Amino acid sequence: MKHKSVEEIVLEIKDKSELMIDLAYSSLLYDNRTIAKEVYDLEDMIDELYKNLQVKTLELVENKKLSVNDALSVLRLAEAGEQIADAAQEIADVELRDVELHPILKLSIRDSDVVFSRVEVASGSILANRTLGELKLASETGMVVIAMRHDTRWLYGPNKNTMIDPGDILFAKGPEDGEKHLIDLASGKSREI
Amino acid sequence: MKHKSVEEIVLEIKDKSELMIDLAYSSLLYDNRTIAKEVYDLEDMIDELYKNLQVKTLELVENKKLSVNDALSVLRLAEAGEQIADAAQEIADVELRDVELHPILKLSIRDSDVVFSRVEVASGSILANRTLGELKLASETGMVVIAMRHDTRWLYGPNKNTMIDPGDILFAKGPEDGEKHLIDLASGKSREI
Repeated sequence: MKHKSVEEIVLEIKDKSELMIDLAYSSLLYDNRTIAKEVYDLEDMIDELYKNLQVKTLELVENKKLSVNDALSVLRLAEAGEQIADAAQEIADVELRDVELHPILKLSIRDSDVVFSRVEVASGSILANRTLGELKLASETGMVVIAMRHDTRWLYGPNKNTMIDPGDILFAKGPEDGEKHLIDLASGKSREI
Repeated sequence: MKHKSVEEIVLEIKDKSELMIDLAYSSLLYDNRTIAKEVYDLEDMIDELYKNLQVKTLELVENKKLSVNDALSVLRLAEAGEQIADAAQEIADVELRDVELHPILKLSIRDSDVVFSRVEVASGSILANRTLGELKLASETGMVVIAMRHDTRWLYGPNKNTMIDPGDILFAKGPEDGEKHLIDLASGKSREI
Protein backbone atom coordinates (compact mmCIF):
# COMPACT_ATOMS: atom_id res chain seq x y z
CA MET A 1 0.00 0.00 0.00
CA LYS A 2 2.92 2.32 0.72
CA HIS A 3 3.77 2.56 -2.96
CA LYS A 4 0.36 3.51 -4.25
CA SER A 5 -0.08 7.01 -5.59
CA VAL A 6 -2.65 9.41 -4.18
CA GLU A 7 -4.77 9.00 -7.33
CA GLU A 8 -4.64 5.23 -7.10
CA ILE A 9 -5.85 5.35 -3.52
CA VAL A 10 -8.72 7.74 -4.38
CA LEU A 11 -9.78 5.36 -7.14
CA GLU A 12 -9.52 2.34 -4.87
CA ILE A 13 -11.65 4.02 -2.20
CA LYS A 14 -14.20 4.97 -4.87
CA ASP A 15 -14.46 1.49 -6.37
CA LYS A 16 -14.39 -0.39 -3.06
CA SER A 17 -17.00 1.83 -1.41
CA GLU A 18 -19.42 1.35 -4.31
CA LEU A 19 -18.80 -2.38 -4.33
CA MET A 20 -19.61 -2.35 -0.60
CA ILE A 21 -23.04 -0.82 -1.23
CA ASP A 22 -23.83 -3.54 -3.76
CA LEU A 23 -22.54 -6.27 -1.48
CA ALA A 24 -24.55 -4.90 1.43
CA TYR A 25 -27.83 -4.93 -0.51
CA SER A 26 -27.00 -8.38 -1.87
CA SER A 27 -26.40 -9.66 1.66
CA LEU A 28 -29.82 -8.37 2.69
CA LEU A 29 -31.67 -9.77 -0.28
CA TYR A 30 -30.08 -13.22 -0.05
CA ASP A 31 -29.93 -13.18 3.75
CA ASN A 32 -26.21 -13.84 3.46
CA ARG A 33 -24.12 -13.12 6.54
CA THR A 34 -20.85 -14.02 4.84
CA ILE A 35 -21.26 -11.16 2.39
CA ALA A 36 -22.41 -8.80 5.15
CA LYS A 37 -19.27 -9.59 7.13
CA GLU A 38 -17.13 -8.89 4.09
CA VAL A 39 -18.62 -5.39 4.06
CA TYR A 40 -17.21 -4.97 7.58
CA ASP A 41 -13.76 -6.13 6.49
CA LEU A 42 -13.82 -3.76 3.52
CA GLU A 43 -14.77 -0.91 5.86
CA ASP A 44 -11.59 -1.54 7.85
CA MET A 45 -9.62 -1.57 4.61
CA ILE A 46 -11.13 1.75 3.53
CA ASP A 47 -10.25 3.31 6.90
CA GLU A 48 -6.64 2.22 6.42
CA LEU A 49 -6.57 3.54 2.86
CA TYR A 50 -7.98 6.85 4.00
CA LYS A 51 -5.41 7.29 6.78
CA ASN A 52 -2.64 6.43 4.37
CA LEU A 53 -4.03 8.90 1.85
CA GLN A 54 -4.13 11.72 4.39
CA VAL A 55 -0.44 11.25 5.23
CA LYS A 56 0.58 11.10 1.57
CA THR A 57 -1.51 14.13 0.63
CA LEU A 58 -0.07 16.24 3.45
CA GLU A 59 3.47 15.18 2.57
CA LEU A 60 2.93 16.16 -1.05
CA VAL A 61 1.61 19.55 0.03
CA GLU A 62 4.57 20.02 2.38
CA ASN A 63 6.95 19.26 -0.47
CA LYS A 64 5.06 21.62 -2.78
CA LYS A 65 4.23 18.72 -5.10
CA LEU A 66 0.48 19.18 -4.69
CA SER A 67 -1.39 22.47 -4.43
CA VAL A 68 -3.68 23.14 -1.50
CA ASN A 69 -6.61 23.21 -3.89
CA ASP A 70 -5.78 19.83 -5.42
CA ALA A 71 -5.15 18.38 -1.98
CA LEU A 72 -8.59 19.56 -0.86
CA SER A 73 -10.22 17.82 -3.84
CA VAL A 74 -8.34 14.62 -3.03
CA LEU A 75 -9.34 14.67 0.62
CA ARG A 76 -12.97 15.50 -0.09
CA LEU A 77 -13.36 12.75 -2.66
CA ALA A 78 -11.82 10.26 -0.28
CA GLU A 79 -14.03 11.48 2.57
CA ALA A 80 -17.08 10.98 0.39
CA GLY A 81 -15.91 7.44 -0.35
CA GLU A 82 -15.48 6.78 3.34
CA GLN A 83 -18.98 8.07 3.99
CA ILE A 84 -20.35 5.71 1.33
CA ALA A 85 -18.47 2.85 2.97
CA ASP A 86 -20.03 3.76 6.33
CA ALA A 87 -23.47 3.73 4.74
CA ALA A 88 -22.75 0.30 3.27
CA GLN A 89 -21.82 -0.95 6.71
CA GLU A 90 -25.11 0.39 8.06
CA ILE A 91 -26.96 -1.60 5.38
CA ALA A 92 -24.93 -4.72 6.21
CA ASP A 93 -25.84 -4.12 9.87
CA VAL A 94 -29.49 -4.59 8.99
CA GLU A 95 -28.55 -8.07 7.74
CA LEU A 96 -26.41 -8.83 10.78
CA ARG A 97 -29.17 -7.80 13.20
CA ASP A 98 -30.50 -11.34 12.99
CA VAL A 99 -33.93 -10.09 12.10
CA GLU A 100 -34.94 -11.23 8.65
CA LEU A 101 -35.82 -8.29 6.43
CA HIS A 102 -39.57 -7.84 6.08
CA PRO A 103 -40.63 -9.61 2.85
CA ILE A 104 -42.33 -6.50 1.51
CA LEU A 105 -39.21 -4.45 2.07
CA LYS A 106 -37.19 -7.15 0.33
CA LEU A 107 -39.55 -7.11 -2.62
CA SER A 108 -39.35 -3.37 -2.74
CA ILE A 109 -35.54 -3.35 -2.92
CA ARG A 110 -35.80 -6.13 -5.48
CA ASP A 111 -38.03 -3.78 -7.52
CA SER A 112 -35.27 -1.27 -8.04
CA ASP A 113 -34.16 -0.23 -11.54
CA VAL A 114 -31.12 -2.29 -10.76
CA VAL A 115 -31.76 -5.84 -9.59
CA PHE A 116 -29.52 -8.18 -7.67
CA SER A 117 -29.18 -11.71 -8.86
CA ARG A 118 -27.72 -14.99 -7.62
CA VAL A 119 -27.06 -17.76 -10.12
CA GLU A 120 -25.25 -21.07 -10.13
CA VAL A 121 -23.15 -21.85 -13.18
CA ALA A 122 -24.08 -25.24 -14.64
CA SER A 123 -21.34 -27.42 -16.11
CA GLY A 124 -22.82 -27.06 -19.58
CA SER A 125 -23.04 -23.27 -19.31
CA ILE A 126 -21.15 -21.11 -21.76
CA LEU A 127 -19.93 -19.17 -18.72
CA ALA A 128 -18.03 -22.16 -17.33
CA ASN A 129 -14.26 -22.29 -17.73
CA ARG A 130 -14.01 -18.80 -19.13
CA THR A 131 -12.82 -15.53 -17.64
CA LEU A 132 -15.06 -12.55 -17.05
CA GLY A 133 -12.89 -10.63 -19.52
CA GLU A 134 -13.41 -13.21 -22.28
CA LEU A 135 -17.12 -13.27 -21.68
CA LYS A 136 -17.53 -9.48 -21.53
CA LEU A 137 -20.47 -10.30 -19.33
CA ALA A 138 -21.02 -6.73 -18.14
CA SER A 139 -21.20 -5.18 -21.60
CA GLU A 140 -23.07 -8.10 -23.18
CA THR A 141 -25.73 -8.57 -20.52
CA GLY A 142 -25.51 -5.48 -18.33
CA MET A 143 -24.89 -7.74 -15.32
CA VAL A 144 -21.87 -6.92 -13.19
CA VAL A 145 -20.58 -9.74 -11.01
CA ILE A 146 -19.93 -8.33 -7.55
CA ALA A 147 -19.10 -11.55 -5.69
CA MET A 148 -18.50 -15.21 -6.43
CA ARG A 149 -18.50 -18.36 -4.36
CA HIS A 150 -16.27 -21.22 -5.40
CA ASP A 151 -16.90 -24.14 -3.01
CA THR A 152 -16.29 -22.47 0.34
CA ARG A 153 -14.00 -19.79 -1.05
CA TRP A 154 -15.39 -16.32 -1.72
CA LEU A 155 -14.16 -13.69 -4.11
CA TYR A 156 -15.40 -10.11 -3.94
CA GLY A 157 -15.19 -7.63 -6.79
CA PRO A 158 -13.77 -10.07 -9.38
CA ASN A 159 -11.87 -8.67 -12.34
CA LYS A 160 -11.33 -9.46 -16.03
CA ASN A 161 -8.94 -12.30 -15.26
CA THR A 162 -11.30 -14.08 -12.90
CA MET A 163 -12.11 -17.57 -14.17
CA ILE A 164 -15.62 -18.93 -13.72
CA ASP A 165 -15.72 -22.61 -12.86
CA PRO A 166 -18.73 -24.90 -13.19
CA GLY A 167 -20.63 -24.89 -9.91
CA ASP A 168 -19.60 -21.35 -8.99
CA ILE A 169 -22.28 -19.12 -7.55
CA LEU A 170 -22.32 -15.63 -9.02
CA PHE A 171 -23.82 -12.62 -7.26
CA ALA A 172 -24.47 -9.95 -9.83
CA LYS A 173 -26.38 -6.75 -10.34
CA GLY A 174 -27.84 -5.09 -13.38
CA PRO A 175 -31.03 -4.36 -15.29
CA GLU A 176 -33.99 -6.74 -15.18
CA ASP A 177 -33.61 -7.87 -18.81
CA GLY A 178 -30.00 -8.60 -18.06
CA GLU A 179 -30.92 -10.85 -15.17
CA LYS A 180 -33.04 -13.10 -17.39
CA HIS A 181 -30.17 -13.32 -19.86
CA LEU A 182 -27.71 -14.19 -17.08
CA ILE A 183 -30.00 -16.87 -15.65
CA ASP A 184 -30.35 -18.48 -19.09
CA LEU A 185 -26.61 -18.36 -19.68
CA ALA A 186 -25.72 -19.75 -16.27
CA SER A 187 -28.21 -22.61 -16.49
CA GLY A 188 -27.01 -23.51 -19.97
CA LYS A 189 -30.43 -22.80 -21.48
CA SER A 190 -28.92 -20.15 -23.73
CA ARG A 191 -25.44 -20.23 -25.26
CA GLU A 192 -25.80 -16.87 -26.93
CA ILE A 193 -24.03 -14.19 -25.00
CA MET B 1 -45.74 12.00 -1.63
CA LYS B 2 -48.30 11.55 1.14
CA HIS B 3 -49.69 8.44 -0.48
CA LYS B 4 -46.47 6.54 -0.93
CA SER B 5 -45.96 3.47 1.18
CA VAL B 6 -43.00 3.09 3.50
CA GLU B 7 -41.47 0.52 1.14
CA GLU B 8 -41.88 2.80 -1.84
CA ILE B 9 -40.09 5.60 -0.03
CA VAL B 10 -37.22 3.32 1.03
CA LEU B 11 -36.83 2.24 -2.59
CA GLU B 12 -36.98 5.81 -3.84
CA ILE B 13 -34.30 6.92 -1.38
CA LYS B 14 -32.14 3.95 -2.42
CA ASP B 15 -32.45 4.59 -6.15
CA LYS B 16 -32.13 8.37 -5.94
CA SER B 17 -29.12 8.31 -3.64
CA GLU B 18 -27.26 5.95 -5.96
CA LEU B 19 -28.19 8.05 -8.97
CA MET B 20 -26.79 11.06 -7.11
CA ILE B 21 -23.38 9.38 -6.72
CA ASP B 22 -23.26 8.70 -10.46
CA LEU B 23 -24.39 12.22 -11.31
CA ALA B 24 -21.82 13.70 -8.94
CA TYR B 25 -18.92 11.81 -10.53
CA SER B 26 -20.24 12.66 -13.98
CA SER B 27 -20.38 16.34 -13.09
CA LEU B 28 -16.75 16.19 -12.00
CA LEU B 29 -15.51 14.33 -15.05
CA TYR B 30 -17.35 16.54 -17.53
CA ASP B 31 -16.87 19.69 -15.45
CA ASN B 32 -20.62 20.14 -15.57
CA ARG B 33 -22.11 22.49 -12.99
CA THR B 34 -25.69 21.86 -14.12
CA ILE B 35 -25.44 18.22 -13.10
CA ALA B 36 -23.65 19.14 -9.87
CA LYS B 37 -26.50 21.49 -8.95
CA GLU B 38 -29.03 18.76 -9.65
CA VAL B 39 -27.28 16.68 -7.00
CA TYR B 40 -28.04 19.50 -4.55
CA ASP B 41 -31.71 19.54 -5.53
CA LEU B 42 -31.92 15.77 -5.15
CA GLU B 43 -30.36 16.06 -1.70
CA ASP B 44 -33.21 18.33 -0.64
CA MET B 45 -35.68 15.84 -2.07
CA ILE B 46 -34.09 12.98 -0.12
CA ASP B 47 -34.27 15.00 3.10
CA GLU B 48 -37.98 15.51 2.52
CA LEU B 49 -38.52 11.85 1.73
CA TYR B 50 -36.65 10.84 4.86
CA LYS B 51 -38.69 13.13 7.12
CA ASN B 52 -41.88 11.84 5.57
CA LEU B 53 -40.70 8.26 6.06
CA GLN B 54 -39.94 8.83 9.74
CA VAL B 55 -43.47 10.10 10.38
CA LYS B 56 -45.07 7.23 8.47
CA THR B 57 -42.93 4.60 10.15
CA LEU B 58 -43.69 5.91 13.63
CA GLU B 59 -47.41 6.08 12.88
CA LEU B 60 -47.36 2.47 11.67
CA VAL B 61 -45.60 1.40 14.85
CA GLU B 62 -48.08 3.35 16.97
CA ASN B 63 -50.95 1.62 15.19
CA LYS B 64 -49.25 -1.77 15.62
CA LYS B 65 -49.08 -2.18 11.87
CA LEU B 66 -45.29 -2.42 11.84
CA SER B 67 -43.14 -4.19 14.41
CA VAL B 68 -40.36 -2.32 16.17
CA ASN B 69 -37.84 -4.61 14.46
CA ASP B 70 -39.20 -3.94 10.99
CA ALA B 71 -39.39 -0.23 11.71
CA LEU B 72 -35.73 -0.26 12.72
CA SER B 73 -34.77 -1.91 9.43
CA VAL B 74 -36.76 0.67 7.50
CA LEU B 75 -35.20 3.61 9.32
CA ARG B 76 -31.66 2.23 9.06
CA LEU B 77 -31.94 1.57 5.34
CA ALA B 78 -33.27 5.07 4.80
CA GLU B 79 -30.53 6.57 6.97
CA ALA B 80 -27.93 4.75 4.90
CA GLY B 81 -29.50 6.18 1.75
CA GLU B 82 -29.41 9.66 3.25
CA GLN B 83 -25.74 9.19 4.09
CA ILE B 84 -25.03 8.16 0.50
CA ALA B 85 -26.87 11.27 -0.69
CA ASP B 86 -24.70 13.42 1.60
CA ALA B 87 -21.59 11.81 0.16
CA ALA B 88 -22.83 12.52 -3.35
CA GLN B 89 -23.29 16.15 -2.40
CA GLU B 90 -19.73 16.25 -1.11
CA ILE B 91 -18.52 14.96 -4.48
CA ALA B 92 -20.65 17.54 -6.30
CA ASP B 93 -19.10 20.18 -4.01
CA VAL B 94 -15.70 19.38 -5.46
CA GLU B 95 -17.11 20.32 -8.87
CA LEU B 96 -18.80 23.47 -7.54
CA ARG B 97 -15.61 24.67 -5.83
CA ASP B 98 -14.66 26.33 -9.09
CA VAL B 99 -11.31 24.61 -9.08
CA GLU B 100 -10.98 22.28 -12.03
CA LEU B 101 -10.21 18.75 -10.92
CA HIS B 102 -6.54 17.86 -11.33
CA PRO B 103 -6.20 16.06 -14.69
CA ILE B 104 -4.44 13.09 -13.11
CA LEU B 105 -7.24 12.70 -10.59
CA LYS B 106 -9.75 12.92 -13.43
CA LEU B 107 -7.90 10.23 -15.35
CA SER B 108 -7.80 8.09 -12.27
CA ILE B 109 -11.58 8.27 -11.73
CA ARG B 110 -11.96 7.63 -15.45
CA ASP B 111 -9.90 4.45 -14.96
CA SER B 112 -12.49 2.89 -12.71
CA ASP B 113 -14.06 -0.49 -13.51
CA VAL B 114 -17.11 1.55 -14.33
CA VAL B 115 -16.62 4.42 -16.76
CA PHE B 116 -18.70 7.49 -17.32
CA SER B 117 -19.55 8.47 -20.84
CA ARG B 118 -21.09 11.42 -22.65
CA VAL B 119 -22.37 10.92 -26.19
CA GLU B 120 -24.44 12.90 -28.65
CA VAL B 121 -27.08 10.97 -30.58
CA ALA B 122 -26.70 11.53 -34.32
CA SER B 123 -29.82 11.76 -36.48
CA GLY B 124 -28.88 8.53 -38.27
CA SER B 125 -28.31 6.66 -35.00
CA ILE B 126 -30.38 3.61 -34.20
CA LEU B 127 -30.91 5.17 -30.77
CA ALA B 128 -32.80 8.14 -32.20
CA ASN B 129 -36.59 8.22 -31.91
CA ARG B 130 -36.75 5.17 -29.72
CA THR B 131 -37.40 4.72 -26.02
CA LEU B 132 -34.84 3.36 -23.60
CA GLY B 133 -37.19 0.46 -22.96
CA GLU B 134 -37.38 -0.47 -26.65
CA LEU B 135 -33.63 -0.26 -27.00
CA LYS B 136 -32.87 -2.26 -23.82
CA LEU B 137 -29.69 -0.23 -23.81
CA ALA B 138 -28.64 -1.26 -20.29
CA SER B 139 -28.89 -4.99 -20.89
CA GLU B 140 -27.57 -4.87 -24.45
CA THR B 141 -24.55 -2.64 -23.87
CA GLY B 142 -24.13 -2.50 -20.08
CA MET B 143 -24.46 1.30 -20.27
CA VAL B 144 -27.02 2.89 -17.97
CA VAL B 145 -28.19 6.37 -18.94
CA ILE B 146 -28.12 8.55 -15.82
CA ALA B 147 -28.93 11.92 -17.38
CA MET B 148 -29.97 13.37 -20.74
CA ARG B 149 -29.89 16.81 -22.22
CA HIS B 150 -32.51 17.72 -24.80
CA ASP B 151 -31.74 21.23 -26.08
CA THR B 152 -31.63 23.17 -22.83
CA ARG B 153 -33.89 20.75 -20.95
CA TRP B 154 -32.34 18.18 -18.65
CA LEU B 155 -33.69 14.86 -17.52
CA TYR B 156 -32.16 12.92 -14.65
CA GLY B 157 -32.60 9.20 -14.08
CA PRO B 158 -34.62 8.52 -17.24
CA ASN B 159 -36.86 5.45 -17.34
CA LYS B 160 -38.07 2.87 -19.86
CA ASN B 161 -40.54 5.28 -21.44
CA THR B 162 -37.99 8.01 -22.05
CA MET B 163 -37.70 8.79 -25.75
CA ILE B 164 -34.30 9.60 -27.22
CA ASP B 165 -34.38 12.33 -29.86
CA PRO B 166 -31.68 13.03 -32.42
CA GLY B 167 -29.27 15.58 -30.99
CA ASP B 168 -29.84 14.51 -27.38
CA ILE B 169 -26.77 14.24 -25.18
CA LEU B 170 -26.66 11.10 -23.07
CA PHE B 171 -24.66 10.79 -19.87
CA ALA B 172 -24.18 7.12 -19.12
CA LYS B 173 -22.09 4.77 -17.04
CA GLY B 174 -21.02 1.21 -17.53
CA PRO B 175 -18.12 -1.08 -18.44
CA GLU B 176 -15.39 0.07 -20.84
CA ASP B 177 -16.46 -2.30 -23.66
CA GLY B 178 -19.96 -0.96 -23.27
CA GLU B 179 -18.78 2.60 -23.74
CA LYS B 180 -17.26 1.79 -27.14
CA HIS B 181 -20.50 0.13 -28.17
CA LEU B 182 -22.56 3.13 -27.03
CA ILE B 183 -20.31 5.59 -28.88
CA ASP B 184 -20.66 3.57 -32.09
CA LEU B 185 -24.42 3.35 -31.69
CA ALA B 186 -24.87 7.04 -30.90
CA SER B 187 -22.70 8.20 -33.80
CA GLY B 188 -24.53 5.91 -36.21
CA LYS B 189 -21.34 3.95 -36.96
CA SER B 190 -22.97 0.76 -35.70
CA ARG B 191 -26.62 -0.17 -36.02
CA GLU B 192 -26.25 -3.45 -34.19
CA ILE B 193 -27.43 -3.14 -30.66
